[in-house]
Amino acid sequence: MAQNPEEVATMFVQYYYNQFDQDRAGLASLYRDASMLTFESASFKGTPSIIEKLQGLPFQQIKHQVSTIDLQPGVAPGHILVLVTGQLLVDEEQRPMSYTQSFYLVPENAQYYVHNDIFKLVYG
Amino acid sequence: MAQNPEEVATMFVQYYYNQFDQDRAGLASLYRDASMLTFESASFKGTPSIIEKLQGLPFQQIKHQVSTIDLQPGVAPGHILVLVTGQLLVDEEQRPMSYTQSFYLVPENAQYYVHNDIFKLVYG
Repeated sequence: MAQNPEEVATMFVQYYYNQFDQDRAGLASLYRDASMLTFESASFKGTPSIIEKLQGLPFQQIKHQVSTIDLQPGVAPGHILVLVTGQLLVDEEQRPMSYTQSFYLVPENAQYYVHNDIFKLVYG
Repeated sequence: MAQNPEEVATMFVQYYYNQFDQDRAGLASLYRDASMLTFESASFKGTPSIIEKLQGLPFQQIKHQVSTIDLQPGVAPGHILVLVTGQLLVDEEQRPMSYTQSFYLVPENAQYYVHNDIFKLVYG
């Protein structure tokens, strides 16, 4: 994976939502035992719990549309904090919902894993 | 400051926006040389640059209304990742704008400082 933080963040976000929209179980490789997901204020720790939550979400189809990606170096070399804003459509719903999602990425070998993942819908 | 992460995050967010809305220069004590602010995709590093940016924002009055606070432990003991959503009103504007802001807090002595701060308006 690219080493430039902007490239890493952009590639990660693209991969994450493509995978999420196609097959949420495939996101398992991005998490570790210490990883945390907070999804609409419900929290889950570790890959099995996180994937169980994601797979159990009550919709069949979802499409994320990323609006913005901002990032900063984290507290240790290679760490990256990412803040995404975007919109999503679920199932037959015609009206997109706005969301924000914050990821904290940690390098591991030549890859990155998600240490923190906080997702929140934004109501205007 | 309280040691429970939820209490720390809640107190921090309350303090941050109260101070922001009253006197942005007073936020200087929350940042350090390594701190970063990304405000609407423009990035600043270190307390002087960050405060210069915040003080130069082109409005006289601002009022933040926090909607949600989510948090997770960060990558090292005591570290906290916070994701805020809310609305803000500037000057005489009557229509609130939605925003999201991600903070990465690092403990230092009995306090916390802001290592990462990413602010983004959310357009519905």
